[in-house]
Amino acid sequence: MSKLKAIFLNASLKSTEEPSNTEVLMNKIQSHYKELNVDSEIIRLADYKIALGVEENMGEGDEWPKIFQKVMAANIVIIGTPLWLGEKSSLATQVIERLYGSSGETNDKGQSVFYNKVGGVVVTGNEDGAKHANASILYGLSHIGFVIPPNVDAYWVGEAGPGPSYIDAGQENEFTKNHVRMLAYNTMHFAKMLQNTPIPAEGNTMV
Amino acid sequence: MSKLKAIFLNASLKSTEEPSNTEVLMNKIQSHYKELNVDSEIIRLADYKIALGVEENMGEGDEWPKIFQKVMAANIVIIGTPLWLGEKSSLATQVIERLYGSSGETNDKGQSVFYNKVGGVVVTGNEDGAKHANASILYGLSHIGFVIPPNVDAYWVGEAGPGPSYIDAGQENEFTKNHVRMLAYNTMHFAKMLQNTPIPAEGNTMV
Amino acid sequence: MSKLKAIFLNASLKSTEEPSNTEVLMNKIQSHYKELNVDSEIIRLADYKIALGVEENMGEGDEWPKIFQKVMAANIVIIGTPLWLGEKSSLATQVIERLYGSSGETNDKGQSVFYNKVGGVVVTGNEDGAKHANASILYGLSHIGFVIPPNVDAYWVGEAGPGPSYIDAGQENEFTKNHVRMLAYNTMHFAKMLQNTPIPAEGNTMV
Amino acid sequence: MSKLKAIFLNASLKSTEEPSNTEVLMNKIQSHYKELNVDSEIIRLADYKIALGVEENMGEGDEWPKIFQKVMAANIVIIGTPLWLGEKSSLATQVIERLYGSSGETNDKGQSVFYNKVGGVVVTGNEDGAKHANASILYGLSHIGFVIPPNVDAYWVGEAGPGPSYIDAGQENEFTKNHVRMLAYNTMHFAKMLQNTPIPAEGNTMV
Repeated sequence: MSKLKAIFLNASLKSTEEPSNTEVLMNKIQSHYKELNVDSEIIRLADYKIALGVEENMGEGDEWPKIFQKVMAANIVIIGTPLWLGEKSSLATQVIERLYGSSGETNDKGQSVFYNKVGGVVVTGNEDGAKHANASILYGLSHIGFVIPPNVDAYWVGEAGPGPSYIDAGQENEFTKNHVRMLAYNTMHFAKMLQNTPIPAEGNTMV
Repeated sequence: MSKLKAIFLNASLKSTEEPSNTEVLMNKIQSHYKELNVDSEIIRLADYKIALGVEENMGEGDEWPKIFQKVMAANIVIIGTPLWLGEKSSLATQVIERLYGSSGETNDKGQSVFYNKVGGVVVTGNEDGAKHANASILYGLSHIGFVIPPNVDAYWVGEAGPGPSYIDAGQENEFTKNHVRMLAYNTMHFAKMLQNTPIPAEGNTMV
Repeated sequence: MSKLKAIFLNASLKSTEEPSNTEVLMNKIQSHYKELNVDSEIIRLADYKIALGVEENMGEGDEWPKIFQKVMAANIVIIGTPLWLGEKSSLATQVIERLYGSSGETNDKGQSVFYNKVGGVVVTGNEDGAKHANASILYGLSHIGFVIPPNVDAYWVGEAGPGPSYIDAGQENEFTKNHVRMLAYNTMHFAKMLQNTPIPAEGNTMV
Repeated sequence: MSKLKAIFLNASLKSTEEPSNTEVLMNKIQSHYKELNVDSEIIRLADYKIALGVEENMGEGDEWPKIFQKVMAANIVIIGTPLWLGEKSSLATQVIERLYGSSGETNDKGQSVFYNKVGGVVVTGNEDGAKHANASILYGLSHIGFVIPPNVDAYWVGEAGPGPSYIDAGQENEFTKNHVRMLAYNTMHFAKMLQNTPIPAEGNTMV
């Protein structure tokens, strides 16, 4: 069996010159992955020029195809996002749009190309909105072919109103730590299970 | 001008024998209303037998019509709810269903019976989910004829994970206090405005 | 291996005396299950007195525990709902609340009692709202321990505005038929996979 | 009284070289506005380079400030969006982010700069998702200071599954036509009402 690979798509609105709360939370998951012998990489989406649209390749200057190659090579795909007005970021929305653009593509058995890949979600925000973002992202992934194991939503938000961010106030939160752990283990368990036993191509091929 | 009336529909899953966090937050709004000369009343929905369905009156034993009479007599209608898994309560969902059941009724000008009424929302939860509940409830009200003034969403939620409730941990939150105040004043301002100048029956009557 | 069992929780607001669009769509999935040797049963929730609250057993008169026993005995749990104002029904919301009430219970390995169970969703409505209901229900299930295979959201909604229902206008919809098929096969594939290889109790036990 | 101005922010992923279903639906509203003596303009957001971030001006190359000036000059602001996987577009999400970036700014009375402006929403999609997008956009606007009159959500979506778009299949839909009319009249009525009687600066100033 080849080594499992996870890719994190960080939909922070900030490029890598600036610290990202979402990325620090992703790092905690990476620590587990290291112990579990899962390779992982974080893509900071704001570093790329991702074209608007819903085609696999929107043409000249579109850097999505580079990212999509990494998605295709991964067993585990985790989308991470900050929150504004209780919603996932525009970049997170765009990632879903671009993934959706390839949802008509099939693997060699005729299933969606995303079959046998495992999805998860990471959210950080000063306050309220995580569960709504979790639901939206996990549903989008599930609808286009990803498997959603139990407890693959790791998030931190603070008390209602403006306040400190995850980096400053959330790193010791036990609930969040538990969800980080469950996300890491369950994405790994399912990726391994699907590597051993891919989803049979029966009743789920595209027509 | 007759005195303004506000009704609070508390969709807590608990009946009045038990304390309700949502009700304590509603009480803060009532304090403002008292100063502003607005009459108000809280209905604890769990005290009533509200039948399943989407008719105005579901027949024998249905206690919704009693509540609906009070809604009809009010200038301001505020729905309050706790949160479970990031969603408004089943009773809050049911209130929207029952209000929707009367959305085909018209006033004497041919507009929805809810025209010239002002809506608002109150949410309390141990953690995450308020904005999603706010959006759902305010949209439901707006779609059936209520006016939604700015800043009529008063809520408190704690940090991610299990934790103390509004009564124990939220009453001093400044953000929540500000939203309580804005909700009270803006529902009052708009109710008064609409009492003086009802929405003209032009372009908005039912066909 | 024992025969797989699926339970459908139909959150229609109508009791079995009246036809349910959601149930007719569930019947299509049952046809597949029959061929696939999966036992299935539909519970019409409106036939039961389900108490408000978030405890496993809310005491005298609460009929939820009867339903919950069947949930516990099933490999596959599918929640079905109609739509009002773009939202799942109050009964669907209540099912999630009651399931949540048992989310702290563990199996003999220390995982959530819902581990190794597979979730899915069925929605019918005259118009718009299915994906929002899908996302909410699948996320709720996933967060408390269910596995969500790809493409387990079968729905039908008509064009914007009032219009005919699934029974009258949706039964020939090819998209819906495909999703019915994928839901049936993928819930079965994953239930079998988890029967053979339960999720290892590593990194995902309750603390 | 100066003539009322409406601005439409079209969050189609396509630039003006391509036809937009959302824009055709906006055009229907413009026809009403012409009769009602309301000036209006459509901004195709995909024609602009809008920087990622939540500041009023993200610096060099950011074209949002040009758009924001028009928002500030308008009495009515209508956001329009297509749907992907049941969600508003990434550009619609970005518009909310950028508007939010100015939500701390105040008018000369100390209220949010968006006070006395009226919001509305327009959605087109091949299928399902409109109400969820409506709720999200109207709530976002309301939370930062806009007034939401009743019935300001005009949308068209087709039957479940892939299918024709608004331009080809939705223009004769009576429900959509009624909502176009109600949106046009009610945004106008409220903009006029607020021009005559601005929201009193009592209880709603920023602290």
